Amino acid sequence: MVTSYITRTASFSAAHRLHSTHLTEEENAAIYGKCNNPHFHGHNYKVEITVKGKIDPITGMVMNMVDLKACIELAVMDPLDHRNLDIDVEFFKSVPSTVENLAVFIWNNINHHFQKDHAGKSNTAKLYKVKIYETEHNSVEYFGEDDDVIN
Amino acid sequence: MVTSYITRTASFSAAHRLHSTHLTEEENAAIYGKCNNPHFHGHNYKVEITVKGKIDPITGMVMNMVDLKACIELAVMDPLDHRNLDIDVEFFKSVPSTVENLAVFIWNNINHHFQKDHAGKSNTAKLYKVKIYETEHNSVEYFGEDDDVIN
Amino acid sequence: MVTSYITRTASFSAAHRLHSTHLTEEENAAIYGKCNNPHFHGHNYKVEITVKGKIDPITGMVMNMVDLKACIELAVMDPLDHRNLDIDVEFFKSVPSTVENLAVFIWNNINHHFQKDHAGKSNTAKLYKVKIYETEHNSVEYFGEDDDVIN
Amino acid sequence: MVTSYITRTASFSAAHRLHSTHLTEEENAAIYGKCNNPHFHGHNYKVEITVKGKIDPITGMVMNMVDLKACIELAVMDPLDHRNLDIDVEFFKSVPSTVENLAVFIWNNINHHFQKDHAGKSNTAKLYKVKIYETEHNSVEYFGEDDDVIN
Amino acid sequence: MVTSYITRTASFSAAHRLHSTHLTEEENAAIYGKCNNPHFHGHNYKVEITVKGKIDPITGMVMNMVDLKACIELAVMDPLDHRNLDIDVEFFKSVPSTVENLAVFIWNNINHHFQKDHAGKSNTAKLYKVKIYETEHNSVEYFGEDDDVIN
Amino acid sequence: MVTSYITRTASFSAAHRLHSTHLTEEENAAIYGKCNNPHFHGHNYKVEITVKGKIDPITGMVMNMVDLKACIELAVMDPLDHRNLDIDVEFFKSVPSTVENLAVFIWNNINHHFQKDHAGKSNTAKLYKVKIYETEHNSVEYFGEDDDVIN
Repeated sequence: MVTSYITRTASFSAAHRLHSTHLTEEENAAIYGKCNNPHFHGHNYKVEITVKGKIDPITGMVMNMVDLKACIELAVMDPLDHRNLDIDVEFFKSVPSTVENLAVFIWNNINHHFQKDHAGKSNTAKLYKVKIYETEHNSVEYFGEDDDVIN
Repeated sequence: MVTSYITRTASFSAAHRLHSTHLTEEENAAIYGKCNNPHFHGHNYKVEITVKGKIDPITGMVMNMVDLKACIELAVMDPLDHRNLDIDVEFFKSVPSTVENLAVFIWNNINHHFQKDHAGKSNTAKLYKVKIYETEHNSVEYFGEDDDVIN
Repeated sequence: MVTSYITRTASFSAAHRLHSTHLTEEENAAIYGKCNNPHFHGHNYKVEITVKGKIDPITGMVMNMVDLKACIELAVMDPLDHRNLDIDVEFFKSVPSTVENLAVFIWNNINHHFQKDHAGKSNTAKLYKVKIYETEHNSVEYFGEDDDVIN
Repeated sequence: MVTSYITRTASFSAAHRLHSTHLTEEENAAIYGKCNNPHFHGHNYKVEITVKGKIDPITGMVMNMVDLKACIELAVMDPLDHRNLDIDVEFFKSVPSTVENLAVFIWNNINHHFQKDHAGKSNTAKLYKVKIYETEHNSVEYFGEDDDVIN
Repeated sequence: MVTSYITRTASFSAAHRLHSTHLTEEENAAIYGKCNNPHFHGHNYKVEITVKGKIDPITGMVMNMVDLKACIELAVMDPLDHRNLDIDVEFFKSVPSTVENLAVFIWNNINHHFQKDHAGKSNTAKLYKVKIYETEHNSVEYFGEDDDVIN
Repeated sequence: MVTSYITRTASFSAAHRLHSTHLTEEENAAIYGKCNNPHFHGHNYKVEITVKGKIDPITGMVMNMVDLKACIELAVMDPLDHRNLDIDVEFFKSVPSTVENLAVFIWNNINHHFQKDHAGKSNTAKLYKVKIYETEHNSVEYFGEDDDVIN
């Protein structure tokens, strides 16, 4: 069977600021600069979710794009679109809402819904990559590599 | 002499919410929906500033793009980038920070710096259009048309 | 009051071929070339709908983007997305489905829903322009200019 | 010697529908939804062909982009542009024209022409990846991973 | 009859520098800055040619896009692609190769070929606008407005 | 700890021609075609620099984007923007300024500044990939794979 990687894109608009509870006000200001503005700023985040799997010989699909879109709706759009990441999202109360951490949050959330909702629909499709563009100049990719997780 | 229209683009990231002081909470929620979230959301705003003028036969330019870039720095980037439009910008304390009103704010601010900083540099170059993309799906154009202004 | 132009974008995927009932097979082949393939080809059409109006001093909006999006859903997406323009759309049974004619169809359809659904919501907002990208290289703009219509 | 990956992009416009000969009409409708429309729909497909190889110390190139462009002309544009994938392309008479299968078709076709036309021109350049954007929201990547092929 | 505006896009790569024969070396350096580098720099110029005309009721077209593409090939690509604007193009020996002047050159050249090659093919299609993106941040639009020309 | 890949984008405008000192004039013309024009042509090069590293639990960052931007300024923009690659950059006096070689130059230069300027700021962040778009149709990726280097 043939292995393929499918990607679905979505965009959401959110407010946030960069601020670490492990740092002093001076350190926060020095490290994060204008991103530390206490009144928040915001972005149109563009997210690309890539799933790796075998092409089903009957349907010709790794996974139904309609199901992937629905999963992104639940795991990305519902909790993040038109939200304040730092106030409205529990995850970012303990870690700074950097784009690196945002990718980890989305990875975990996609995987959570993936395993719950898509169980049985495909034996092979697995989340492969989360890519986020914070601006047209800054982006991050996360492949689920985590030394602290016992795989 | 030849009339030409030059455009310079810039992008900034800001937080805001849609909320009108002339409306009740219920009306605000009904009209603005999720954009009314009191914790704010945000965007990467993309701005296009178009200047109309005669091409100078000596320099071949309507206006030096370096000067236009500097003007955009002062009139757009400094007051708006990594800001909360509703808290950090005086103009939006009395009017909602819709993209329509944001274009009017930028028009006025560009014109203010234009007249102050670029006086004498060009006899013909005039602000022609402000275009703002709030998201890749929503944009607004403003040409300075205002019935209330005595031109 | 201030006049502003707001634009909302949408995309749809459709099949079509270029073929005129007023021309012979040979003429059709000569004029339309590979676009005349009887088995059809297709495009991801990108549509930009621009509305001109006064900014409401209470809401700060020319027209609610949510209403504009709903109108585009009815007037563009429902009849055209994942359709065959030549078979599924009555309008193109008598005229070729060129991008020029497609813009006229969308103009008429938007205006039809606009007048029906948005009556009373705004006294000033009027359809100003329909722009369609057939490919990244070909586009058309229509402003409703029609000599045959008694305005 | 230095290993580099070069990518050349092309776009083509085609009609298709999603339909599997292994499924009933009801199953086809349920799985593919509006993509199952018997009258077809269509897309502007954007294709990225990536070749991996050593940089030739004399020419500074992995492979001449002119040759890669010519190969894409033969392997992608000629059979697919302004075509109906399901009617005009033999390969899709037995498998659904999903974007996953389209990438496999293009992989095989590029490789076929690659081996035929470019033999001897480079000892190291090999097809590495085929990426296709079906829409701006859906894409697929194929690296030639196939369990059924004896490599 | 219906008036429509069609646009065709093309891209070319060229070297140039900004330098005016009417200015001293010091003035050139002061006005044009790094763009005055005597060794040249370069751009991927993106050009949009817009033609205005009536939609032909038989063909549904303002003008055949194939003819427009051929005209752009002759008037834009042949003289400018992979050229040095200042050395290879006669026009820029007397005027600086600013993007403003480049738009005037292309306007004149398109119009020249337009009148010669497309005479009789359409009674109504006329060049309406030349737009050039020098970079993603700088662009210019020219509508043929020229006080010195007796229209 | 979590491994993430961050990417920062920049653009520069430069002139160049393709020409190899190891080839005769006839060979150069045959291999490079119009890219061999002795008067040069040019491009807006778009560069993507990807850094791989662990997410710092305190700052939430692989590396401060501000530092990465400053490094790109020194390693890419200063030596290449508004330059003639073949005349102004020592590296291209001995090797052709193909996009493949340009990626190697930028890789080496980024790594040079990286090791010098960012020593101690992060124990884990390492240059992972250099991607360059020469035009919207041609790009190259380099991961530092070099058989001749003793790692």
